[in-house]
Amino acid sequence: MAKRDEKAITPRGEDYSQWYQDIVLKAELADYSPVKGCMVIRPTGYALWEATQRALDGMFKETGHVNAYFPLFIPMSFLSKEAEHVEGFAKECAVVTHHRLGAKEGGGVEPSPDSVLEEPLIVRPTSETIMYAMYAKWIRSYRDLPLLLNQWANVVRWEMRTRLFLRTTEFLWQEGHTAHATHEEAWEEVVRILDIYARFAEEWMAVPVIKGVKSESEKFAGALQTTCIEAMMQDGKALQAGTSHDLGQNFARAFDVKFQDEKGEWQHCWQTSWGVSTRLIGALIMAHSDDQGLVLPPRLASTQVVIVPIYKDDAGRARVLEAAGALKSRLKEAGFGAVLDERDTVSPGFKFNEWEMKGVPVRLEIGPRDVDQGACVAVPRVPTRDLRDGEKRQKETVPLERAPEVLRGLLDDIQKALFARALAFREERTRPVDDYADFRERIEGGGFFLGHWCGSGDCEARVKDETKATLRCIPFGAPAEAGKCLVCGGESPRRVIWARAY
Amino acid sequence: MAKRDEKAITPRGEDYSQWYQDIVLKAELADYSPVKGCMVIRPTGYALWEATQRALDGMFKETGHVNAYFPLFIPMSFLSKEAEHVEGFAKECAVVTHHRLGAKEGGGVEPSPDSVLEEPLIVRPTSETIMYAMYAKWIRSYRDLPLLLNQWANVVRWEMRTRLFLRTTEFLWQEGHTAHATHEEAWEEVVRILDIYARFAEEWMAVPVIKGVKSESEKFAGALQTTCIEAMMQDGKALQAGTSHDLGQNFARAFDVKFQDEKGEWQHCWQTSWGVSTRLIGALIMAHSDDQGLVLPPRLASTQVVIVPIYKDDAGRARVLEAAGALKSRLKEAGFGAVLDERDTVSPGFKFNEWEMKGVPVRLEIGPRDVDQGACVAVPRVPTRDLRDGEKRQKETVPLERAPEVLRGLLDDIQKALFARALAFREERTRPVDDYADFRERIEGGGFFLGHWCGSGDCEARVKDETKATLRCIPFGAPAEAGKCLVCGGESPRRVIWARAY
Repeated sequence: MAKRDEKAITPRGEDYSQWYQDIVLKAELADYSPVKGCMVIRPTGYALWEATQRALDGMFKETGHVNAYFPLFIPMSFLSKEAEHVEGFAKECAVVTHHRLGAKEGGGVEPSPDSVLEEPLIVRPTSETIMYAMYAKWIRSYRDLPLLLNQWANVVRWEMRTRLFLRTTEFLWQEGHTAHATHEEAWEEVVRILDIYARFAEEWMAVPVIKGVKSESEKFAGALQTTCIEAMMQDGKALQAGTSHDLGQNFARAFDVKFQDEKGEWQHCWQTSWGVSTRLIGALIMAHSDDQGLVLPPRLASTQVVIVPIYKDDAGRARVLEAAGALKSRLKEAGFGAVLDERDTVSPGFKFNEWEMKGVPVRLEIGPRDVDQGACVAVPRVPTRDLRDGEKRQKETVPLERAPEVLRGLLDDIQKALFARALAFREERTRPVDDYADFRERIEGGGFFLGHWCGSGDCEARVKDETKATLRCIPFGAPAEAGKCLVCGGESPRRVIWARAY
Repeated sequence: MAKRDEKAITPRGEDYSQWYQDIVLKAELADYSPVKGCMVIRPTGYALWEATQRALDGMFKETGHVNAYFPLFIPMSFLSKEAEHVEGFAKECAVVTHHRLGAKEGGGVEPSPDSVLEEPLIVRPTSETIMYAMYAKWIRSYRDLPLLLNQWANVVRWEMRTRLFLRTTEFLWQEGHTAHATHEEAWEEVVRILDIYARFAEEWMAVPVIKGVKSESEKFAGALQTTCIEAMMQDGKALQAGTSHDLGQNFARAFDVKFQDEKGEWQHCWQTSWGVSTRLIGALIMAHSDDQGLVLPPRLASTQVVIVPIYKDDAGRARVLEAAGALKSRLKEAGFGAVLDERDTVSPGFKFNEWEMKGVPVRLEIGPRDVDQGACVAVPRVPTRDLRDGEKRQKETVPLERAPEVLRGLLDDIQKALFARALAFREERTRPVDDYADFRERIEGGGFFLGHWCGSGDCEARVKDETKATLRCIPFGAPAEAGKCLVCGGESPRRVIWARAY
């Protein structure tokens, strides 16, 4: 077998999973680390997380939330206070048992036997327990409510089978944790945050999502209800891109989070928690990228435009580089993330491929003739449909003096085109299904299936067991429609979404 | 003994350490957590860290650095690869040994005996080892250099005696790690970063610092040289506010970080690392605050101005609140962090005290008569010396229409006044010393002592042992001055700084 070109990306059609990994590694978004299950997020990938943080953090703050920071470690006994919670997380806990290394007989070091902790500490898999122990201390009166905190942090959930960004032992996330005086207010918060997540996914990531509620078996360990946003990847699988939980008073009871109401009576708080993680970067990659490499939505790309100078001789080089340098300065002044690729060691064609692989939304080519004409050529990373005249646009000559204005329009078109393409893709692959045998056959091809469900966990378990599909969510606002459960034929009030998922 | 007023802050003069803790807890900057040695950073404190991050991150990026993220866990064997390094950190390592909890006989949970890790993992105390294992993989050629990465992260160094912000088992920090082709370039980087740290301390925190080099015994474990910035707190003790290390080729040899130079020959990289942490918030508090509470430099305060309405009856209330609301809007539009304290449940005097305790730089009072005159009264948190006319200024009537402009000037004055006050304080308490007996006596009163030092570790150890003072640094640009070592009388080329430290 011929050795595959090391630079080449495996085509999606050939091996989807390898295609994804090739993009992550070759676009230098992340890398495997020497610690099993943990990844290194490289600068290009981390810049996407920073852009995500900026956008979401702004939306959280606009809605009255503030950031704080709670300990990485959770006493083992805390995790056990809410019964469902510990059951949900016990199997994936990293446990700290010693606080010192000492010399080992025969050389090297080992955990000092005399440094064993009285109580083991868990590296937080999520922070409900440690945070609510503090809430119990801080909250006294209805005047202290609502308490609207968020934390940007790392968490650890031990994984045996990992995949960069999508499933790693350590990941980065934000976790919001709020406390309210009434269940109604808490539920409003759950929905408010889910809306923020959906807006971020659709308007920034250009990834359409379906909002809905999880079934009992898929909800967060300790919650009354879990709401979520679900996105479709290019292999037709679902990816849960964010969750917002109605915790009811479960944790408030376990941690004694109480307030005195206006009548002076003590009541347990109503709580919510919600989070998105670096998993979103995996979703971003899988939603838009192609066989040439990464495709980034302009609003999240830190490099939005790369200028590639083209010349044949030294005289041409000087003129072109001067014009290209001036163009870069103007674009940067206008607020664009612009890069000029001045390398002499590689050809323009090589540069085109490399920047395409890295997902930069627009390339501007400029050669001697362009300089003469005071122009450059703009090439979008993906063909955009010009929203003004309905024509598909691939290349465009842009007068240098109008470059910032044209670029702004082009980036906006790309952003919209990516969303439209992803939405059309999902709609084509979202189909009603009424026959279980039919469903079992068609699920192999991927996609979302709208099927009736009686509400029983047994039917859900059977679907999972027999098809590897899960109930992704009961969509918000799904029309009431009486029907028969896909599995058992029992009565069902509405269709839910079934799909295989990441 | 009368019970102390729970709201009151212990005076500095009475108990400095209690004063500090009172401010941290009562201004709600941080709190003790149920996990021994770990703190909770509350929203007010975290906002200071966010402001710190914004300022520093901007300066790092301006100088070509990019952010990345490396694993929280470090295999035990990695830590041991650089001999000095493991020796420096072994005694403060949190060690993960299990990856699962299981049911315990008789109820509860315990670390599952069948989930013992083959190799224990260390929760990073710093990331040289895990990062440079990746650098060895990524760096191939001189074209890959310099590599200029930074990471914002949490780290863990086990502490028995903790103090909020200043010394905690877990803390937040940034750690920069760079690789260069020559020692000269690496040293330039070390100094460039130290300058950034000094600029941040002086221009943002309003804390004057002394830049210098650590002695052999105080340097970072594994470095050739450690440079630092040292600040003086109000009890005359030193606080190391940031360090920048010249790692030479020590880690490059241990982790095989090599590049091919232009001639095609393999060479080890020259590396640097550098960091500041949430400790800076402790420094900020201790440098400026007073017996009324927290004092914040305007450039780092998220709430820069609080508007307190003053009225006696409902008619007055309506007029005053309307004017106050309009003022707040104008100030916010002009970019100020402005808050309007509309509470009806407490008196203006109570509000004055509370906002003073929280360190808000300027209070604007507005009553019915002020509204009639189209004015308000500005009261700075600390008396500022008016830099324009040399008069001490305490209160000032400000026409509402000129409020943003006057406020800008006032905040600027406060920022400068805080720096000037801290600098004067330090200068008064920085004195030459030539006699060891004299030094031993005077060190009890705190302050920086400029004393000669022969360069011997033994003399340093003796000072530490007998006076609890340490060699804080050999200041950059200290004038050459032949003298006799404070301790042994041996020859010394220049004076160094001795002080007790946090």
